[in-house]
Formats: sequence, structure tokens, C-alpha cells
Amino acid sequence: MISSMDNPKIKTLLKLKQSKYRKSEQAFIVEGSHLVSEARLAGVLMEAYSIEDKDGYIQVSEGVMKKICNTDTVVKELGLCRMLTKSEISDKVLILDGVQDPGNMGSLMRSACAFGFNTMFIGTGSVDIYNDKVIRSSQGAIFKLNFLFGNVCDFVKSLKHCVYGTNVESGIPLKEVKKEDKVAIILGNEGNGISKEVNALGLENIFIPMRNTESLNVAVAGSIILYEFGI
Amino acid sequence: MISSMDNPKIKTLLKLKQSKYRKSEQAFIVEGSHLVSEARLAGVLMEAYSIEDKDGYIQVSEGVMKKICNTDTVVKELGLCRMLTKSEISDKVLILDGVQDPGNMGSLMRSACAFGFNTMFIGTGSVDIYNDKVIRSSQGAIFKLNFLFGNVCDFVKSLKHCVYGTNVESGIPLKEVKKEDKVAIILGNEGNGISKEVNALGLENIFIPMRNTESLNVAVAGSIILYEFGI
Repeated sequence: MISSMDNPKIKTLLKLKQSKYRKSEQAFIVEGSHLVSEARLAGVLMEAYSIEDKDGYIQVSEGVMKKICNTDTVVKELGLCRMLTKSEISDKVLILDGVQDPGNMGSLMRSACAFGFNTMFIGTGSVDIYNDKVIRSSQGAIFKLNFLFGNVCDFVKSLKHCVYGTNVESGIPLKEVKKEDKVAIILGNEGNGISKEVNALGLENIFIPMRNTESLNVAVAGSIILYEFGI
Repeated sequence: MISSMDNPKIKTLLKLKQSKYRKSEQAFIVEGSHLVSEARLAGVLMEAYSIEDKDGYIQVSEGVMKKICNTDTVVKELGLCRMLTKSEISDKVLILDGVQDPGNMGSLMRSACAFGFNTMFIGTGSVDIYNDKVIRSSQGAIFKLNFLFGNVCDFVKSLKHCVYGTNVESGIPLKEVKKEDKVAIILGNEGNGISKEVNALGLENIFIPMRNTESLNVAVAGSIILYEFGI
């Protein structure tokens, strides 16, 4: 049983709390037995840790587990996972142009998965998808999607898909949009919407008619659009 | 300018951080100039506080403001608001049976408002709607809705509306549900769904067809349903 914070394995796990190390190591941590199983199923689990003496798990003390994990509640298991990226792009693509809230990012992963948007493009300026809060709120959807990263404009120009922006005020009402099979939907930042640079591409925008409200939560608005284009 | 934490007004504001005092005083706090304006527009603003010397505002020191507010960023204004409940019930009603996450609660308020579900029934066991995180994520929708509180079963029995439960696995697919004008939708807890007690009423359930996913975020799923029944 590992009970020292100086153990090299533990030191690596602690480093992975930082985004830059996750990037350089191409690895990330998941907390809780549900996510560990999902990671194993997805074939990305490199090591599993438990506070119990279990087959196939590296045992650590409760104190060590507590220091690695980010939740207030006691986590019994955690998994060290490798990042996996495929270059293939699904027919339905969700593009995030600066979504910042981890909860929104995780919720959007669940919805993308549920409605067949199996590729997610994470534009520069969006929250790190391997952040612990994102992973938690993705509820395992993070293992079922293919993620691409980079500049949204460049990616949009490279796509053969029908690409729509989104806007809270104007555009084609969602119910009236032709539901193409090969479609990409762009969602913008919580406060500012889609960036100027992307708006300058002159794409058609989708909007959701509403009353008495300035805007919906971005995970909600995005998911309503994915629902209409899914499954 | 008030700079002492012992000032009676400040003491009252501090007490209102606790749910039980909000309930006994029938008052709550909103943070930030946007929400203060919305509260004023809604006619529920009793007192406004600012760190600046402004007409119609009680000035407080930055230190005092910081201690009252819950956000990390500096808030310049806050408002003391009174709770307002009307007994009238709108044609479209959203019923929450144990929604616990403040972000979900706030997002659902925005969606309810956007799609014309102007009455929200907050069942016992749901998060306090006057919690600061709920108010923040409601983005002002909290001032545009009518809230009722109590036991979900009793309320459902008293309604003349067509009432639907929701379930992640079975029921009538959302697109096939007859969109009644007088409708009430029940959403359950994030982890456990609708309570046993409410399920025992034998209501018809709506579900959202999805693939490869166990469930959607409750604010997302609920909002998709409200969208289909709205505006």
C-alpha cells in the first residue's frame, strides 16, 4: 500500500491536476468506480488505484487518495487514463468556440453523445476537457466521443459539413432549419457568444425562439439544437 | 458609508446567507448590478447597496461588500429583495421533485421563462431557490416566474392540468406526446429521478430517445421538453 506523497506514481498523479501536465503527458485522472469502469471499457485505463486491497488495483492510503481527488466526498477508486484522439470526423459535429464553464462542457458531452454528435471540436479558449469537473459532469460521455482541438475558423473552413452558428437574437428559427445529415453546430462563450473571428465567416445562424428572456444556458440551448438534429 | 460588520443592516444581510433566515424573513440577496436592476423592475427590491456613493443606494465599504457576497470577483452592488408569491397558476407548469444542483435549478428557471412555463412548483427536497448560486445562474429569470412550494403529490392531485412525469428509459417519446395547452411537467432528482411517492401516482411518463448514453443532465432534458411544449 502506498501511503507516501513522495512515491513517484503519486507525484505523477498530483501533477496531472494541472492542465499543462495533462497535455504534456497526454494523460488524465478520473475519480470514482463508475468512471474507472467506463475508462476500462473504452480501453484508455492505464492504471487503477483503490483504497481497498483489490485485484488489478494499486492500493493507496485514504490520506493519499484524499489529496489526489478533488471532491469533498470520499472517493474509493481513481483511474489514470490516456488521451485518445482519432482524426476521423463523424457526420454530426459539435464545435465549441470558447465554452468556459466545466458543468456546461460536461453536460454538452452527454448531449452530444445522446444525439449522435460523436465528434466534438474544442476551440481555443474553451475549458480544458480533462478538468476534473468536466469529467465528473460528463458522466462517462467523455469516453464515447472523439475530440479534436484547434482554431475554430480553420476547422470550419476545412469541413465539408453544413455549418451553422448560433445566436440568441436572430437567424433561422430552429424548427425551420433543414435538418442536414452532415451538419456542424457552433456554440459560443457563455457571456459573449460566438467570437468575432468566427462570426466574420458569415455562416447562417440558428436561433431558438423564446420570450421574456435574454438567453438560455449554453448547454441547454446547444442540447436543444442537438436534439432537433439527432439522433 | 457603512464599514462595520456590526451595523444592524449588515448583520441582517449576513444572516440571509442562511436558508432558514431567508425563509423566516421572506427576503433574499441578489449580487451585481444586473440583478439589482431586474429586482427593481420586478418591484421586489427593498434596499440597494453599493460600494460607490450613488443616489438611492446605501454605501458600504469594499470590505463589507466582500464579506456579504459569495463570488470571488468583486461585486459593486447588491440588492435586498422580498419574496413574492402569487397563488395563481399558469397554463404551463414546471414541477421539480428534488432537483438539487443550484446550476440546474437556475438553468431550468431560464428555460421555464423562455418557453412560457411561468409557474414553477418547487417540491420538498429541492434546493432552496434563493441560494446565491441559483440566483446567479437564473440570470434574472427568478424575478419573472411565480413559485409555489410544497408536497409534489398533493399539488399534482390538485391540478386540472395534464400532468406528465419524465423517465430516462421508457414512456411516450417526446415528439409523439400530444402538446396540450394546460400541461405540467415533473422533473426528478439528478441521481434518482422522480420519487417513488410521485411515481406511485401512475402518471404517464415522457422520455427523450437517445443512444449510447444513460441519461442527460436534468436541466438539459427538462429544457428540451419545455421547448417542445413552448412557447
